[in-house]
Parts: sequence; C-alpha cells; structure tokens
Amino acid sequence: MTDRTAVGKVYLVGSGPGDPDLLTVKARRLLDEADVVLHDKLPGPKILDLIPEDRREDVGKRAGGEWTPQEYTNARMVELAREGKTVVRLKGGDPTVFGRGGEEMVTLAENEIPFEVVPGITSAIAGPEVAGIPVTHRDHVSSVSFVTGHEDPTKDESAVDWGALAATGGTIVVLMGVGKLPDYTAALREAGMDPETPVALVERATWPDQRVATGTLETIVDVRDAEGIEPPAITVIGAVAGQRERVVEFLEGD
Amino acid sequence: MTDRTAVGKVYLVGSGPGDPDLLTVKARRLLDEADVVLHDKLPGPKILDLIPEDRREDVGKRAGGEWTPQEYTNARMVELAREGKTVVRLKGGDPTVFGRGGEEMVTLAENEIPFEVVPGITSAIAGPEVAGIPVTHRDHVSSVSFVTGHEDPTKDESAVDWGALAATGGTIVVLMGVGKLPDYTAALREAGMDPETPVALVERATWPDQRVATGTLETIVDVRDAEGIEPPAITVIGAVAGQRERVVEFLEGD
Repeated sequence: MTDRTAVGKVYLVGSGPGDPDLLTVKARRLLDEADVVLHDKLPGPKILDLIPEDRREDVGKRAGGEWTPQEYTNARMVELAREGKTVVRLKGGDPTVFGRGGEEMVTLAENEIPFEVVPGITSAIAGPEVAGIPVTHRDHVSSVSFVTGHEDPTKDESAVDWGALAATGGTIVVLMGVGKLPDYTAALREAGMDPETPVALVERATWPDQRVATGTLETIVDVRDAEGIEPPAITVIGAVAGQRERVVEFLEGD
Repeated sequence: MTDRTAVGKVYLVGSGPGDPDLLTVKARRLLDEADVVLHDKLPGPKILDLIPEDRREDVGKRAGGEWTPQEYTNARMVELAREGKTVVRLKGGDPTVFGRGGEEMVTLAENEIPFEVVPGITSAIAGPEVAGIPVTHRDHVSSVSFVTGHEDPTKDESAVDWGALAATGGTIVVLMGVGKLPDYTAALREAGMDPETPVALVERATWPDQRVATGTLETIVDVRDAEGIEPPAITVIGAVAGQRERVVEFLEGD
C-alpha cells in the first residue's frame, strides 16, 4: 500500500492540434508548473519548445527496448508520482480521442496514483473547422462519427464497420487515414455512399504549413496523390466538406 | 461592394464546456482584445463574468422580436464588422459541434466579412473524460459518434438513424439528450443493442456543480429520474461508460 499523502499527482493533458495558442489555459499553466512532462512527438515542436529541456522526457522512442512505449510510459508515470512529483503526461490532441488516455487512467487508478484529466482540442474537429468545414450542420447532418484509419496492428482485420458508418448519414471524420484512404473510400462507395460526396483532407491542421485538398469520394485518392498529401492529416467525408469553397475567400488563419 | 480595408473581423470562438481554465489561450486573449463579444447563455456565468459589461452583448434573447436569435446574431455580426469592429462571436463548447458555426461562416463570407474560427473544447468529449470515461478505447471501440438529442424542431421526424449508430459498434455520445433519453434508449434496444450496455449521464460537465449518474441501457431512465439529472447533460453509451467505476476513487477534479 502506497502512502497516499506522499504520492504526487499525474495530469493527463491534451496539447491540442499543435498551435500553442490552442492549448487550454490550464494546460499552458501545467506545462510551467509540472516537475516533469512526459511526452512523445505528437504535440509538435512549437508546443514542446515551451517546456524547459530539464523538465521534459520523451517517452515515445522506446521501440528498441524491452518495453513498448506504452508500457514504459505507464511505468514511468507511476514511478515519478511515487517520488512525489507533479507529472504532466502530455498527449497530442485530446487524451481520450484515440489517445490511450483511457488505458492510462486505469493504470494510474490501479497503482493508487491520484490523477486528473485535462481535455485538449482534438484535430478531428479543429482540423476541419479551421479549413472552413463544420463537422455538423443542421441542414445536412444530425451526427458526426470519428474513426481511426490506423488501427491497433495486433487486430486481424478492420473492426470498423464502414457500411454502418455510411448508413448513419452523418459526417465521417477519419484520423490518421492518409495511407488507407483508397481502402475506406472504396468500402464507403461499396456500401452505397454517393461517389459525388465531398471529401476534404487537412494536413498538419493548425500548423504553419497546414494544407487542404478537396475532392469527392471518387476523386480524393487521385487528389491526394497529385497534391502529395502526407500524414498527419484528417479526412472529412460528407456534405459539410463542400462548404470550404463557399467561405475560403474570407477565411483567415487558413 | 464593401470597402474591405475598413471592415473589421469576426472571430467565431468556442468557449469550451464552462470552466474558464478550459478556454484556449487564444480565446482568453480575444475576450480581452475584442471590441464587442456577442454571446448567449451557453458559455456559462464563469466565462461571461470575464468579459467587461460594456463590451458584451447578449444575442440569445430575441425570441419575442421580429427575428429569430440566429437571424439577429447574423445581422449583428455583419453590422459590427462593417463599423470596423473586432468582433468575437462566443459560442458554448466548440463552434461547429451542433453550434451553427457553419452557418455563421457562410453568412460572413456572403457578406464579405473576414473571419477566423477558434476551436473550443466540446463537452461531448470533455464531459465524459473528466468523469473518468474515455470516448474511445482500443480494446472496446474503433469509432465514436456524436449526435444531438435536441434536433431542429422544424424537422418533422427524427433524422437520426439510431439503428445505424448501434450497428457501428462504437461509442455513442448524445448532446442535449436528457429529455429524449427514453426515446433513444428504447430505439437502441429495438435495434439490437445489449440492454446491459453501460450508460453514463454527465450533468453540467466541468462546472463546480457537475454530477455523474451511471446505469445501463435498460436502467438509465430510472437512474435519471431517481437522481434528478437535468439539462445540460451529456449521455455516453457504450462499454467505455463502464470505466468510471474502475478509476473514480483516484480521479480528482470530478
């Protein structure tokens, strides 16, 4: 049994999509106050540069070691908290949107470490909207679904039911979905989705070198190849993706 | 043709779920710098109190007038920008998650007003996670869908396909869904979803008086009534909702 009074605290903190201005006020303060910030590369250089070198630890590069990065991160969070440290586990975007924050919460609770979750702006919403695309629209859609294009590689086959997602009639946002774009656009067409459905790709959303490319469910793979869109990028599928061209002339910060 | 050099700029800004610490750094700064902040009640008192009285305008209470609040807001944004003002249109949560930010972008572009979107933390993600519930989990779900329980009242019938949402196998998060909880939990059970599926209600997420109630697809309506859960609240449906009890003992800020 750990002496709870001597134990530190872990904050699971979302960094947002990469622009330091899109950190929350609380995240910004915790980066200054924490004894140690555990991070990987996902928050991006602009945010990592805000953290003094002597208080940050990169936990994202243990692939050659005995542990996976996740096992190492879990063990390190617990170890530092037991030393009485205030620890920030900084995660790209939001901690629980395909971010394993849920697993980290359970690890901390099982090890009797007090913790708190600090939500972050997810690029799944911010990426489209800074490109002029709302993920919902009362005239077009009643729901929006987020799905990852980069599943746990230990799974044998895709657990995503693209047919069911198409049947919702809502917007579909795919995170980390540049590589598998041909697979899921084909699956959606086979499920009966209109090949003319607008699709947008937002590369490095909110970063200084953000790029946006648009097409349809039928053309977007060619557009991706012609424009050379690369990860990290968000894919938006649905009528809302057609809004960009109506507003882009007056859209700033794009 | 408006003289574009003399025109101000409109920022469509998300306030987050209500805790001022969950404003973004950019939103916080814009609240200090804007000439006028147009708002309704949704950002909540803690955030509205940050804005000096002489620079804020409540656009959410025009129901008795000739215009709907939305028409009034649209006209007022354009009018102020044409006076050369820097305008913040402050919206609860995120501007484009069931927030009509998409419509406001189009209004601004059609009136040749330069604008920028500043994403906010949506309670659809933050509400569950501050209650110990991750909206995704690699062991349980490959997608998460957000849907509104409070649809446009001009629509004749529900445009939400609850059967398709159930078929995705992913987490379902319902915003503004306290009143219609009996309807959609029944629809999901009829669509074949396991009545034992965990369900959580998070009332006033991140506010000082936040409350959480948990049950199953079968029991949650009785739980809601017994606990007296009232709007605004988020409903989380899926295996992830069962995680709260595993972590809540060590979860702070809850």
